[in-house]
Amino acid sequence: MDLQKLVEDALSGAEVYRGHGDVASYIPALAAVDPRKMGIAIACKDGSTYRAGDADEPFSVQSISKVFALNLALDHVGAQLWNHVGREPSGSPFNSIVQLEQEKGKPRNPLINAGAIVVSDNIMGHGTADAAVAEILEFLRDRAGDDSIAIDENVAISESQAGFLNRSLAYFVSAFGNLKNPVEEVLSVYFRQCAIAMSCRQLARAALYLAFDGTDPITGDAVTISHRARRINSLMLTCGHYDNSGDFAFRIGLPGKSGVGGGILVIVPGFGAISVWSPGLNAAGTSLAGAVMLENVVERTGWSVFV
Amino acid sequence: MDLQKLVEDALSGAEVYRGHGDVASYIPALAAVDPRKMGIAIACKDGSTYRAGDADEPFSVQSISKVFALNLALDHVGAQLWNHVGREPSGSPFNSIVQLEQEKGKPRNPLINAGAIVVSDNIMGHGTADAAVAEILEFLRDRAGDDSIAIDENVAISESQAGFLNRSLAYFVSAFGNLKNPVEEVLSVYFRQCAIAMSCRQLARAALYLAFDGTDPITGDAVTISHRARRINSLMLTCGHYDNSGDFAFRIGLPGKSGVGGGILVIVPGFGAISVWSPGLNAAGTSLAGAVMLENVVERTGWSVFV
Amino acid sequence: MDLQKLVEDALSGAEVYRGHGDVASYIPALAAVDPRKMGIAIACKDGSTYRAGDADEPFSVQSISKVFALNLALDHVGAQLWNHVGREPSGSPFNSIVQLEQEKGKPRNPLINAGAIVVSDNIMGHGTADAAVAEILEFLRDRAGDDSIAIDENVAISESQAGFLNRSLAYFVSAFGNLKNPVEEVLSVYFRQCAIAMSCRQLARAALYLAFDGTDPITGDAVTISHRARRINSLMLTCGHYDNSGDFAFRIGLPGKSGVGGGILVIVPGFGAISVWSPGLNAAGTSLAGAVMLENVVERTGWSVFV
Amino acid sequence: MDLQKLVEDALSGAEVYRGHGDVASYIPALAAVDPRKMGIAIACKDGSTYRAGDADEPFSVQSISKVFALNLALDHVGAQLWNHVGREPSGSPFNSIVQLEQEKGKPRNPLINAGAIVVSDNIMGHGTADAAVAEILEFLRDRAGDDSIAIDENVAISESQAGFLNRSLAYFVSAFGNLKNPVEEVLSVYFRQCAIAMSCRQLARAALYLAFDGTDPITGDAVTISHRARRINSLMLTCGHYDNSGDFAFRIGLPGKSGVGGGILVIVPGFGAISVWSPGLNAAGTSLAGAVMLENVVERTGWSVFV
Repeated sequence: MDLQKLVEDALSGAEVYRGHGDVASYIPALAAVDPRKMGIAIACKDGSTYRAGDADEPFSVQSISKVFALNLALDHVGAQLWNHVGREPSGSPFNSIVQLEQEKGKPRNPLINAGAIVVSDNIMGHGTADAAVAEILEFLRDRAGDDSIAIDENVAISESQAGFLNRSLAYFVSAFGNLKNPVEEVLSVYFRQCAIAMSCRQLARAALYLAFDGTDPITGDAVTISHRARRINSLMLTCGHYDNSGDFAFRIGLPGKSGVGGGILVIVPGFGAISVWSPGLNAAGTSLAGAVMLENVVERTGWSVFV
Repeated sequence: MDLQKLVEDALSGAEVYRGHGDVASYIPALAAVDPRKMGIAIACKDGSTYRAGDADEPFSVQSISKVFALNLALDHVGAQLWNHVGREPSGSPFNSIVQLEQEKGKPRNPLINAGAIVVSDNIMGHGTADAAVAEILEFLRDRAGDDSIAIDENVAISESQAGFLNRSLAYFVSAFGNLKNPVEEVLSVYFRQCAIAMSCRQLARAALYLAFDGTDPITGDAVTISHRARRINSLMLTCGHYDNSGDFAFRIGLPGKSGVGGGILVIVPGFGAISVWSPGLNAAGTSLAGAVMLENVVERTGWSVFV
Repeated sequence: MDLQKLVEDALSGAEVYRGHGDVASYIPALAAVDPRKMGIAIACKDGSTYRAGDADEPFSVQSISKVFALNLALDHVGAQLWNHVGREPSGSPFNSIVQLEQEKGKPRNPLINAGAIVVSDNIMGHGTADAAVAEILEFLRDRAGDDSIAIDENVAISESQAGFLNRSLAYFVSAFGNLKNPVEEVLSVYFRQCAIAMSCRQLARAALYLAFDGTDPITGDAVTISHRARRINSLMLTCGHYDNSGDFAFRIGLPGKSGVGGGILVIVPGFGAISVWSPGLNAAGTSLAGAVMLENVVERTGWSVFV
Repeated sequence: MDLQKLVEDALSGAEVYRGHGDVASYIPALAAVDPRKMGIAIACKDGSTYRAGDADEPFSVQSISKVFALNLALDHVGAQLWNHVGREPSGSPFNSIVQLEQEKGKPRNPLINAGAIVVSDNIMGHGTADAAVAEILEFLRDRAGDDSIAIDENVAISESQAGFLNRSLAYFVSAFGNLKNPVEEVLSVYFRQCAIAMSCRQLARAALYLAFDGTDPITGDAVTISHRARRINSLMLTCGHYDNSGDFAFRIGLPGKSGVGGGILVIVPGFGAISVWSPGLNAAGTSLAGAVMLENVVERTGWSVFV
């Protein structure tokens, strides 16, 4: 298969959707992004990366960071994490507080906002917010093999200033005793983690170990244990796109995680990782042109975990 | 791999759970089943079937029938089915009516009760209830290659008599104009479909085509088109176990569907199909010892769609 | 106070709303009513009745019948009724099924549909549906002193044929064991009770005893015990208008009950009873011009339980 | 009627419940109150006050302050307040966030926590939090004719430190743009308002104007306009006790407001005001012995708005 042609065809096939959808507007720094950006990158086992469009331009990863943060929290506290957060699809929008009330402050899964806030708390442990942020950043730099990855401080500040709903979720969780650290410190980890900027190339490369049972196929690093990698993939498939997760699994058939910055990360178990980016979002908060690029890829390749 | 040893080890490994859990009690015919029954069967590409325990004893398939009914409804009306039923996990118990109110009579997915009632309606089309039931039965006999498969009429009658909640769901859906046929006729299809009795061997054999992109690997029959088979697998993975679907994907990592009769059907894409049976259920209505047998199998084989 | 002028002024003051709002359309018999009808009647302690507009034309009382049915059920089973139905405002639309699921088949109060179905069951007791309907009808004829009051059989049949939601509610309640009689028999009481036709004059006269602590001031009949009459008034005030009850209490300040036939019944404790009728409804299912007539009355008279 | 005997009999009649129920424990300052305290006071038109038990001991008024704050906010912004907060019973516990999500940040009514936070914001207007608190305190001192009324600063600090849920509610409301002032400033008004300490005597005296259409019958002050007083009474009746409001109206039949400090304030339109206090609460957060004292009073006097 000519993978370079694949990414170029995927990009051109989605060209008609360039600029479509709504750019996330709740913080000024995200709203200012050029809605016509489109990029795609595929990272493979042998270290090669195939790219098209704006695949080297860093964008705000937002909720995609939840995948890597989950890995780190599991490394810290192991299965105890599941005492604090569930692993079921929520069937609700990303910031819903309804289930949180019914389920007494235990978020449905680690890939919705409330769950990711609990994950941040578990990465912190008894340490500082700054140490937790540094750990997340170092993990991503290591995995992407690129020390230039950084937090977009403007976005981080905007996130905090505009983060009324996330602040409400965090205080709600804390009211049920489900945060070990002070709410504002946990939020400072969460907001900065969301504000990390990475390119499609960096994201696909960083996630490669999830396609190979936890071992980075290029460096040979045992990043995480085998069943943990599989379970992260499982959570991405069932819960990676909020109340759009079932539809994404139905259409794309691969574990993935979307972010309101317009990025989507997808794992092709045994083969590699794909990242797409385009800022315009559909009603469920998933990149519109990004999803079309992924549909083009799976249609051409037949990639799916279901066959 | 010695598959005969695999099924025997899976059975003996779950021995400690024999008789554990609660047998479904809402209808007398189900409550009367011996809770100590346990069986497992694996059907493979070449036609061989490996069995242990009570793998040849027919049991009430209950909700497992929803998988095959979904296939038939898609064959009848194609993608129009998705105008009448969604494809998202519900995040709610199997008989919840709450989302049905919020979502104006459109059930979340075809694998919860309300959704399966809509599926029954779409199989009926302009025909009779009896014809729809005959079609479902014929499909299963064809797929299992076994004309002895039949409806347990006692169970069917009990289902109807005790089916207050399902009746409530059906009238609710109908109130929003989402049933084409009279409620009681649609229910008569649904109740009889749930009352079909099959053994683990028959179920695993019947589902084999779902592991091979829609084509039965033994007969060569093109049962359904490729992407339809994949999408049915996808729905099984995200929605096959009600509000326990995420946990099942997390632990087992394969598309599956459970029934309150104690059966579970699991697809191993590219390899085959597994069916287990044990009547005792966990709190989410999934077979307790059945899930343990499946965990034993995936632990020994490494089977998972996520690697 | 010139009460004849009062009712005439109330009518003319609401003239601008004549024909406004939406006539209930879920059954043909209700949809066929002339939307321009408007009537008002006030019944007083001394037997005099003041009327304006279409005050003598019978209309479908619909949910207003729930007030009298509640009285009868309390006479049958006393405080045991509160084991089967609550007495809290629902905060939800009249036919919501959500709370019914959360509260395990015990409706919030006897003035929403599900609660009134439970009330019908308690009037039936061990008797027949026909006997229960006859009892309700006899009660209303006695109280109104008018044997011509009857059920509109066309409406009753339409109610049953179109009653998907009410049927769903009844089966749902029954699934939790909260109906003593077969669902369809209970519904046949409920549907016929809703289809009783009465005029404003008849309704105001029939309810007079509720303004005088349970004793009919004209006949001297002790219709019900003192605290029961007060408590029925209390339930009308807190729960009489579904999710519009708070607003009605805020604007009108008197116990009342509305029906989707466009009637509203209001109690003026110590003074008398008012009934208005106009078929056009607001979004909450309360008569639009009817509520305006009542506002005119309370503005002119200062009647309110809150002063 | 011998009102002194009435209050003494009410107290002794509730003696068996002395110390029963659970004292609010979410902040240390409330948990430390002696659970065996019981007091009752009735304030009458002519300025006389009848008292029994601990009627002169100040306690934390908590949510009872919401009644007076509502009056002040209406004086500030008039009917525009209803753009920011509804007037329907919530049918939910006092701190529920579910409806707030469904209704996009507009609380159901001003007597639940989220609604009272919106009321605090409207009292602040363009001023400072300190000025708003001073205004509330001055209003209560004026109405009670007692300049010694003060905020219990220990309680206020505890409220803020333990106020995770209220903070969550406030940020949630703010996320929908429904607060004009910074969240923490609004909360500082709300927490201090709840921490005001008053005795039964002071509370009954302060609320007397609500029983006389807005005019203080002793000083002759026109405290608020007639229809505003009536409507505050109406809101107390339909919404004054969270998801226990219907039951309270059913049993007591008078407008009232309870607080988790164990106080209850009740209005007897045209006659006077009653305040009771006993720290032990029932499951809905209403004073257990306090409600019994009120039942004793209404049973002996026949006071009720429904007759």
